[in-house]
Amino acid sequence: MTQHIFDPITDEEIRITTKLLKDLNGDAKLHFANIDRLDPPKDKAVEYLNIERYGGGKLPYIPRRTYAYYYLNEKIPLFKAIVNVSENHVICNVETPEGTVGPLIPDDMNKAEEASLRHPAVLAEIAKLKLDQVHYNHANLGKLEYKVVSEPWMYGTDCEDNKVPLVQCYMYLKLDHPDANHYSIPLRFSPVFEYLTQKFIRMDYLPSGADELYIKETLPFKAIPTVEYHPDVIEDFQEREGLKPLIIQQPEGASFNVDGTRITWQGWDFRVATNSREGFALYDVHFKGRSLMYRFACNEMTVPYLEPRAPFHRKQAFDLGDCGFGNTANSLALGCHCLGVIKYLDTRRADVEGNPVLIPSTICMHEQDYGLLFLHQNYRTGKTVATRRREFVLQTIATVANYEYIINIIFDQAGAITVQVRATGILSTMPNDEGCVTDWATPVGPGVTAAFHQHLISFRADMRLDGDKNTVVYDDYVPMEENTALNPYNVAASQKRTYVEKSGSIDQSPFTNRTYKVINENSINPVTMKPVGYKFEMPAKQMILASKDSYNVKRAHFATKQIWVTKYAEDRMYAAGEFTNQSTIDTGLKVWADGSENVRNTDIVVWPTLALTHPPVTEQFPVMTSDFLQFLITPASFFDRNPALDVPLANNNFNKSVYYEDANKSDTKPSSECCKM
Amino acid sequence: MTQHIFDPITDEEIRITTKLLKDLNGDAKLHFANIDRLDPPKDKAVEYLNIERYGGGKLPYIPRRTYAYYYLNEKIPLFKAIVNVSENHVICNVETPEGTVGPLIPDDMNKAEEASLRHPAVLAEIAKLKLDQVHYNHANLGKLEYKVVSEPWMYGTDCEDNKVPLVQCYMYLKLDHPDANHYSIPLRFSPVFEYLTQKFIRMDYLPSGADELYIKETLPFKAIPTVEYHPDVIEDFQEREGLKPLIIQQPEGASFNVDGTRITWQGWDFRVATNSREGFALYDVHFKGRSLMYRFACNEMTVPYLEPRAPFHRKQAFDLGDCGFGNTANSLALGCHCLGVIKYLDTRRADVEGNPVLIPSTICMHEQDYGLLFLHQNYRTGKTVATRRREFVLQTIATVANYEYIINIIFDQAGAITVQVRATGILSTMPNDEGCVTDWATPVGPGVTAAFHQHLISFRADMRLDGDKNTVVYDDYVPMEENTALNPYNVAASQKRTYVEKSGSIDQSPFTNRTYKVINENSINPVTMKPVGYKFEMPAKQMILASKDSYNVKRAHFATKQIWVTKYAEDRMYAAGEFTNQSTIDTGLKVWADGSENVRNTDIVVWPTLALTHPPVTEQFPVMTSDFLQFLITPASFFDRNPALDVPLANNNFNKSVYYEDANKSDTKPSSECCKM
Repeated sequence: MTQHIFDPITDEEIRITTKLLKDLNGDAKLHFANIDRLDPPKDKAVEYLNIERYGGGKLPYIPRRTYAYYYLNEKIPLFKAIVNVSENHVICNVETPEGTVGPLIPDDMNKAEEASLRHPAVLAEIAKLKLDQVHYNHANLGKLEYKVVSEPWMYGTDCEDNKVPLVQCYMYLKLDHPDANHYSIPLRFSPVFEYLTQKFIRMDYLPSGADELYIKETLPFKAIPTVEYHPDVIEDFQEREGLKPLIIQQPEGASFNVDGTRITWQGWDFRVATNSREGFALYDVHFKGRSLMYRFACNEMTVPYLEPRAPFHRKQAFDLGDCGFGNTANSLALGCHCLGVIKYLDTRRADVEGNPVLIPSTICMHEQDYGLLFLHQNYRTGKTVATRRREFVLQTIATVANYEYIINIIFDQAGAITVQVRATGILSTMPNDEGCVTDWATPVGPGVTAAFHQHLISFRADMRLDGDKNTVVYDDYVPMEENTALNPYNVAASQKRTYVEKSGSIDQSPFTNRTYKVINENSINPVTMKPVGYKFEMPAKQMILASKDSYNVKRAHFATKQIWVTKYAEDRMYAAGEFTNQSTIDTGLKVWADGSENVRNTDIVVWPTLALTHPPVTEQFPVMTSDFLQFLITPASFFDRNPALDVPLANNNFNKSVYYEDANKSDTKPSSECCKM
Repeated sequence: MTQHIFDPITDEEIRITTKLLKDLNGDAKLHFANIDRLDPPKDKAVEYLNIERYGGGKLPYIPRRTYAYYYLNEKIPLFKAIVNVSENHVICNVETPEGTVGPLIPDDMNKAEEASLRHPAVLAEIAKLKLDQVHYNHANLGKLEYKVVSEPWMYGTDCEDNKVPLVQCYMYLKLDHPDANHYSIPLRFSPVFEYLTQKFIRMDYLPSGADELYIKETLPFKAIPTVEYHPDVIEDFQEREGLKPLIIQQPEGASFNVDGTRITWQGWDFRVATNSREGFALYDVHFKGRSLMYRFACNEMTVPYLEPRAPFHRKQAFDLGDCGFGNTANSLALGCHCLGVIKYLDTRRADVEGNPVLIPSTICMHEQDYGLLFLHQNYRTGKTVATRRREFVLQTIATVANYEYIINIIFDQAGAITVQVRATGILSTMPNDEGCVTDWATPVGPGVTAAFHQHLISFRADMRLDGDKNTVVYDDYVPMEENTALNPYNVAASQKRTYVEKSGSIDQSPFTNRTYKVINENSINPVTMKPVGYKFEMPAKQMILASKDSYNVKRAHFATKQIWVTKYAEDRMYAAGEFTNQSTIDTGLKVWADGSENVRNTDIVVWPTLALTHPPVTEQFPVMTSDFLQFLITPASFFDRNPALDVPLANNNFNKSVYYEDANKSDTKPSSECCKM
């Protein structure tokens, strides 16, 4: 199969990149922080896509490009290179600006974790715990020791002089069982190390009371019970009974078709390509032959903690910019992460040496039924038209230390996309003095509390609605002037449209039902006689809570607003900027959405921010039932009528459901009864 | 099986009620507007439930009661009676207050529809259309005539003197085919009739331009194409290809158990009883042995149109109070309205004569898989705990003329309930002059426009969280005081709790992440050391838009706020009051939530209002893909940890999924691979 311009990076392309950069740097030792494919130039790509879809000539040749971040000899500065891997030459190779710190990658984090556990300063603290003098009598497992665990975190920022890449190791105890939950016993010391060299910097001591005053010495540990999530470690575990199999059977196979990176399903036609930073991106998204988006991806997430006490004030992850949703992607397993007929795609990343690493099955694709798509019963005839809502789901799951993020892109049969994030996994916990109750954290077990925090997730929608020139508007619904000839009964309301003329953001306004739309002013809907559009349906949410003068906000300006509009430019990919780890400022939307550029009827990018203020509850420990965040991208007078009228009507010859009363009989055959139609 | 106190009304109970009231009224002809079961007195019922669940004596005898609305000799006043059907006597029988109009029932509406089509005044207008001179050449069906359709609506209110029950008939044309869509050609005349007698009152002429000036005479109809939803009537229909079967197979049957009205599933334990007005109510809702609610139901919906022009200003349905979600419930069919192993329940209503009418299968119950419940991967070991989210869904669907409302109550395995309403069906349309574009309606086809409108849906949650005394609080998340010893980096936020002391409403405040909770101050969570609670998670929404001085708001005061709190009282069942049809004032929450009663630590009822401002889009015609509205009732430190830890881990021996690559091979067996656990 010929390689497509949007296909993800190959092992060979990683190897070429590494070799060219090693050659360029002579004897120096290269320490890679990332190697991945760079998107093709958009103008060329659009030319390519137009010819691919509509014909009209030979596909243009577009050389494949990669980018790489690396250090020399385990020292800053961080270098960035762009490589032409089709023609084997380095396009550019530059030192990043002073103070730039590269993303954290799993290899280095594991090294930091190991180093922290054997450093004398840490061993000295561990000795003070006198762990040899305590143990836990587990109801099922008998006498268990407590073991120390280290969890390195991005260091964060609280001043301008974070010049050296650092990690902060949060330390825990766990029962000596491979599946024990260490988040249940956070320790009170927390060493800081240099990230590249594992050099010990200092020991921080963690607060555990309701104020900034706390004990700064490590005391002997007193055995306490842990709150466990694994069935093998939960005491007196009794598995819940009564759940019977529910098998998604697709005897004729899946309704979707996968051809390399191209996916087609029920009128949808797009490409999906995995990458190390975003997990994956969609490209060239069409529905029923009409273009919707050039590119769509989750591009950043920041998780600021709302804890005042040092060093927790620095807890602010940028899960994509600091770690990467591809780098941290789970390998998904059949019948566990999704059901039915499943197609998987892999991710390739580079290790610190620049060697390719395969992470298999990071994306799964499947179909699901989610109730009724549309239904109407004519009460005069009793006749019903009913269609089932079949969904096509693209899923990836990233584990960023404690937390899991499940990204589901859900396509329906009527031209709508639901972008759904499920937050699950384990709360990042802090030590808590007995009886300590604050109003900024929730105790979740003995000696352990979970701080309030937020998740602010940026998506980047490079729009191409019926063509390259689009406009963002927002519509408010406001009462009509009262006591006029037209509105004498004072019941009416009308739509007030505002055009976004300059790059920037839109304020939330749920009480005027403010609706964000992308329209194409050059494409008029023949029925409404107005421009065609798609809307971004987003729930009103609290945005980032920290003070605007705090580093948390300076670094994540994007998190202050729900939706942004910028003009397209090739290097505007990530909401908080290209380099977020230990950053002091947002070099992304802060810069690009400054009001200086015209964004009406031009090539624009829309940046929705999903937000969740998360004050934990006890039900979210020791593992958290998925919390849902989502928004919709849905047609708003884009088509001239319901584009799903051609979906086959529901009937039980196809769906083969059975009556409850019959279900336990061995000779049950599905009824052939169907809707009265 | 012994009858339970919450079991729905029986045919026999309807007959007894009718007979006793006929006997009471001698020779007068009774015209019934409703007969249904009345809930037992709560104090007695709670005594019954406590003994039923925990033992401690003989179940108390509680006589069954019904209520009935009826007219005598087709004339107001409306009478209301309460009957003891266990002991065959009328408890009370009263004239309702002057001006009270009873609900509309299908029998009478059909009669009005028929009458309107044969009334000379209407026939005269129809004659002016000169329909014998036009026809439509349908691509598949050949030459088709146009036929007139009448759709009677609740009359609404725009003054104080609506003393007589009325209906407004909206008239349409449709192609002469049983499945043709009449909403595509609204006519410009609209007769008004007396509801009980079908006496002609007057002819209204409908506006069709952008102002209040319009043609008041009926002109000959010129043939125009219609926008059709039924495959048999859509021209050149081509069914969408490629959708392959997705069969929900439950070889061991359902995981839920139905015993009369009692449902148990995965820790849930409650009763469900159908009724004519609400569709159904849940009773005595428990999860894992702990009480959550005494009763829960959708209790009212108002749909005000935002159209200024008469007579559309009167379009304001109260779909439950005026019509009843039980009366208008669809009979659900296997493999159409839900999939898998399905249990159905029926509704019984009374006709105008007081005879029982069975509406079969108005509720369906089924299970579905909806992705991951929780997941965590320990990156050190690569081991994952993953559980699938199985859901139990109770569904009912009401057809209120053009619109369908799908009510889904979705239970998860972790103690949460999702209350989901899907709005589908057909937009109520108005005639539109060619080229007329307004900012309060959306043209959806030739000569037809759909006005902006709202849906405001009230739920009634009679709480019983860990006991009879509950409290409502709301929590805001606000920045902590800056530049203090505790918060020097200005990143922190804390929770500010407000107790609702007096009956009333809570203002929305999404930007402080305001969260509504019901707590029990007498039940302390041992982990958080604070009262246990459940939260109502609701999206911030625009509430009713009409002027507060309009009848639309006077009649539906409940629609002005998202959540209300009242003290429990037996007769406080419906948010806009007991009688909504042609009402002039909200006799429900307007009265009960007036701030006069203490609602802290007592027997309280919570009234959430789901709201949707609905400016139609072309994709919603001729039938509307389900629009979702939902809120969550979810534990907020009610349990001491995740109550779903006992859910079996996902594995493919149970789920039997298959690889895409294998799915088309005939010899495919499900892989036995499962999560690394």
